[in-house]
Amino acid sequence: MSEYKYPFNDILFSLQSVAQIERLTPYLHDMVDDSLLEAILEEAGKLAEQVIAPINASGDKEGSRVESGEVIEAKGFKKAFKAYADGGWIGLSGDPEYGGQGLPSYIATAVNEGVQAANLAFSLCPLLSLGAIEAISQHASDILKNRYLPKMLAGEWAGTMNLTEPSAGSDLAAIACKAIPDGDVFRIKGQKIFITWGDHQMSDNIIHLVLARLPDAPEGVKGISLFIVPKFLLDNQGEPAERNDVHVVSVEHKMGIHASPTCVMSFGDKEGAVGYLVGKENDGIKAMFTMMNNARQGVGLQGLAISERAYQQALAYATDRKQGMNASRTARAAIIEHPDVLRMLMTMKSQIDAMRSLIYVAAVENDLSHFATGEVQKQAVIRTALYTPIVKGWITEQAQEITSLAIQVHGGMGFIEETGVAQHARDARILPIYEGTNGIQAIDLIGRKLHSDKGEGMMSLLADIESELTHWQATDMAPYTEKVTVMLQQAKAATQSCLEAMQEDPVLGTGLAYPYMMLMGYLIGAWLQMRALHAVQGNNKLDDVQKASWQHSVGFYCDHVLPRAFGYAHEIKFGKTTVDKLNKNAFNR
Amino acid sequence: MSEYKYPFNDILFSLQSVAQIERLTPYLHDMVDDSLLEAILEEAGKLAEQVIAPINASGDKEGSRVESGEVIEAKGFKKAFKAYADGGWIGLSGDPEYGGQGLPSYIATAVNEGVQAANLAFSLCPLLSLGAIEAISQHASDILKNRYLPKMLAGEWAGTMNLTEPSAGSDLAAIACKAIPDGDVFRIKGQKIFITWGDHQMSDNIIHLVLARLPDAPEGVKGISLFIVPKFLLDNQGEPAERNDVHVVSVEHKMGIHASPTCVMSFGDKEGAVGYLVGKENDGIKAMFTMMNNARQGVGLQGLAISERAYQQALAYATDRKQGMNASRTARAAIIEHPDVLRMLMTMKSQIDAMRSLIYVAAVENDLSHFATGEVQKQAVIRTALYTPIVKGWITEQAQEITSLAIQVHGGMGFIEETGVAQHARDARILPIYEGTNGIQAIDLIGRKLHSDKGEGMMSLLADIESELTHWQATDMAPYTEKVTVMLQQAKAATQSCLEAMQEDPVLGTGLAYPYMMLMGYLIGAWLQMRALHAVQGNNKLDDVQKASWQHSVGFYCDHVLPRAFGYAHEIKFGKTTVDKLNKNAFNR
Repeated sequence: MSEYKYPFNDILFSLQSVAQIERLTPYLHDMVDDSLLEAILEEAGKLAEQVIAPINASGDKEGSRVESGEVIEAKGFKKAFKAYADGGWIGLSGDPEYGGQGLPSYIATAVNEGVQAANLAFSLCPLLSLGAIEAISQHASDILKNRYLPKMLAGEWAGTMNLTEPSAGSDLAAIACKAIPDGDVFRIKGQKIFITWGDHQMSDNIIHLVLARLPDAPEGVKGISLFIVPKFLLDNQGEPAERNDVHVVSVEHKMGIHASPTCVMSFGDKEGAVGYLVGKENDGIKAMFTMMNNARQGVGLQGLAISERAYQQALAYATDRKQGMNASRTARAAIIEHPDVLRMLMTMKSQIDAMRSLIYVAAVENDLSHFATGEVQKQAVIRTALYTPIVKGWITEQAQEITSLAIQVHGGMGFIEETGVAQHARDARILPIYEGTNGIQAIDLIGRKLHSDKGEGMMSLLADIESELTHWQATDMAPYTEKVTVMLQQAKAATQSCLEAMQEDPVLGTGLAYPYMMLMGYLIGAWLQMRALHAVQGNNKLDDVQKASWQHSVGFYCDHVLPRAFGYAHEIKFGKTTVDKLNKNAFNR
Repeated sequence: MSEYKYPFNDILFSLQSVAQIERLTPYLHDMVDDSLLEAILEEAGKLAEQVIAPINASGDKEGSRVESGEVIEAKGFKKAFKAYADGGWIGLSGDPEYGGQGLPSYIATAVNEGVQAANLAFSLCPLLSLGAIEAISQHASDILKNRYLPKMLAGEWAGTMNLTEPSAGSDLAAIACKAIPDGDVFRIKGQKIFITWGDHQMSDNIIHLVLARLPDAPEGVKGISLFIVPKFLLDNQGEPAERNDVHVVSVEHKMGIHASPTCVMSFGDKEGAVGYLVGKENDGIKAMFTMMNNARQGVGLQGLAISERAYQQALAYATDRKQGMNASRTARAAIIEHPDVLRMLMTMKSQIDAMRSLIYVAAVENDLSHFATGEVQKQAVIRTALYTPIVKGWITEQAQEITSLAIQVHGGMGFIEETGVAQHARDARILPIYEGTNGIQAIDLIGRKLHSDKGEGMMSLLADIESELTHWQATDMAPYTEKVTVMLQQAKAATQSCLEAMQEDPVLGTGLAYPYMMLMGYLIGAWLQMRALHAVQGNNKLDDVQKASWQHSVGFYCDHVLPRAFGYAHEIKFGKTTVDKLNKNAFNR
């Protein structure tokens, strides 16, 4: 197995030249300069490479287990989590009032790319903690914030998100977990499933955020409230003391991310678990969406990270493994010399470049939506909303292809677990599912994001893309811009078709959602590849080999990856009636 | 987990109406009539459903292990293998002179679809045995045939294929295993890896077919000979007696097909394993290709079978699982009522229909290449050669998408191993790799099949497709034929581009091989979907619901699946230079 190498150069380039972090300068003042950014990324790279990557394969093999009602995580994870917490990584973007460092989230994104690539299963624990921190920061009372945030931001306590129940998966309206008022607190009763890192021994306490229903709550999503339910109740000094009535029942046996315990949690087997209301009664879904939107970008990042990891391994193997003869038939060839293997590797690489650009562009947009003011902020909110489902949906779909290609480059060895590359594909398979399936992302894009503002936000994005492309048409990038412009016109037409379909019938219209999301992903990827190439050409820090590598990536993307979008555009143009007519009888034969 | 249901109707329809088995009638005389065919398929369905499917999930969980130098297979497999052998299924297409039933191979294909869908890991044992039987039948002396074929055709003895060595995977020229003459026999020495069902306790003997090199053999593939190396040497009565010097070293820990032991085999640790030459010295590669071409169609069939299995499970889950509200918001909906889920299910179904058509069309062509005479036979040989890499490559690529979609339809449950659907995706992941990776299939298509006859065979196939499409243009199928015809023109142009690229440089030209294989797969799939629809319309045995189901499948294929081929066509048209320019430096950054 090749060792993971944090792609420092590519990330820095992506941030500085594609995501244009300087757009944040007016709002962040001198909070971050180049040398601070580089120093943070260097340390993050070391952490990922030296501390977190080495326990990835062993964690996959060992998994986790329940012993005497407690989850025992895989060996080495506790030590790694302590190193991660002690390094101050969890509080990177946290509120300084509670011990966070208040840095923009694009830095945390760049750090997390390394952590996730090194060990996807491990990375979920801090990721879920951050989600919990975010929900508490934005919605909880000052008392609760003071009680929980400092320890959570310091990584002494972890956090979880408890949404899913056996009958309530994608459909949160069906949540049945109960919250019964009991003086100042609530007693939580019910079962939650699929709780990531629902229990473990890595932190002194675990702060569960739980969706539950008050006795008199309205039906559906408007009757859901959010509660803090700590594993250990706090004493007067704010230290973990008495055990709360929440317990792990079992951990699932999954296809991948074995080292991440996916728990069935039982709340209130006895007297009811003590819970503290976060925000207002019946307003839990709003807080959950705050957490989820960030988590969704986080899952997209996981798709990029695991793809990069798998690609690195395939590249190393292809460079090393000898099969067949070279083109002049004078010596045995490393398989990277065979055109079909080069095709596979560049299919991976060129897409990863585009995915990374999108990740950091979306992260900066997200930061602008928090830090900027006025029109810029308003625009950033809209863009972030548009990018989020594409980041989550398109990138995690790409991750399926890329991790699978990494196996393919290995031939028979790829199917053998000891090789280590199959783990990436198994781990990646959860990404299109959790935090809202990719079908739901697509419906979010075509419905909540496109249909609800009559396409205004999307048409503005497409117009910006067009104007940037026009800018480059006078350069030697013209052959590429031409191809991307053709696809842009297709995307415009597809947007119109989708708007009409949603206008006509907002349920049936969602049959076009998935191809639309994929089309937009490929187009945005192409646009950002162009932006990268433009930046490369004027970048003095890159040498000729690096510049040529970018040229290959962008050229290949335009000729071999982008054309897939023709298929999706065609599907949207001609396929509406074919989907509309479907119902369950279509499968009776 | 849903129970596997053998798709009797679909298979029979595919054979009779799409693959046009009546083309074989002039050569098979009255060997097979409808009632015999139906009776065989019914029994095959029962075997698959009742005997072989029930040990699939348990076999995945248990796997196999080595104990005292012997492989112990998963529980229940020995009994199932005995039932399979006792039913006479192994000898179905075997030579009647040695106890086979001499039936055309399309019947064995239809039987195997059920066996493979029920339990991919199990099915590999008889599949490899059949490969060995085929090689012995076609290339061994009468003495060897008499000694081995009757027991193998009866399923008393199993067979294996021993090609791969650590340095010789795709590159058979690198085979180093030695065969040293010793009187009438040879002593085989060397190590083989990735030997499927290389050892087990299900049969009284295991007949290994082994590629090895004689002391004075020329280098490369022209110096490889084929040997029979039985696990137990035979006594004078032809019964297994003394243990031969061949032993299993270990079994691999794989991503899927856990119940199929993938063995490292050691030949000749002591005095050398006794081997018997099959065919002529240094002529082994020819025999191996005989076996491999059949095995490649067999792997394509596995792609269809596992896709059907996964689809059935997804359909059952989607019909059962309730999430969200129905379109009129009056009740909770089964998820199959949501348009995006319908889209996923029909993406699976419509491709499976096309894949099945291609499987049986290729099987009948294969039979014609054996049973027919004169021009028909000659033509069938060419067609079989063209279909084989598309059957193996395209169909197993589709199987990746379809088994992954089956997980996706299950949401979070799909990622839990107990649900059973993840196994299909893990099992399916080997299909694009073994029996020649899909990259090698594509190179076989563009090189050995297209380039070597200057495209004559392919252009003849495309002409046949065109004439059949023209025929339907005057029917109510016109809207579909139009779409397929557009793609046919793209395929013609792509064929020309590929021919020119291969003419110019037969190494660099292979950079276009993969998109060409995929384009041809989607086009042929569309053509056969049209043929199916045409047959459906005139078929009195199908009721209206069944007819409507076919209409949906074909319409969806044309509007949602076929458009992907635009991407591949575009890749071939514009992408040559982008691939040509690639070399390993392109990845240095």
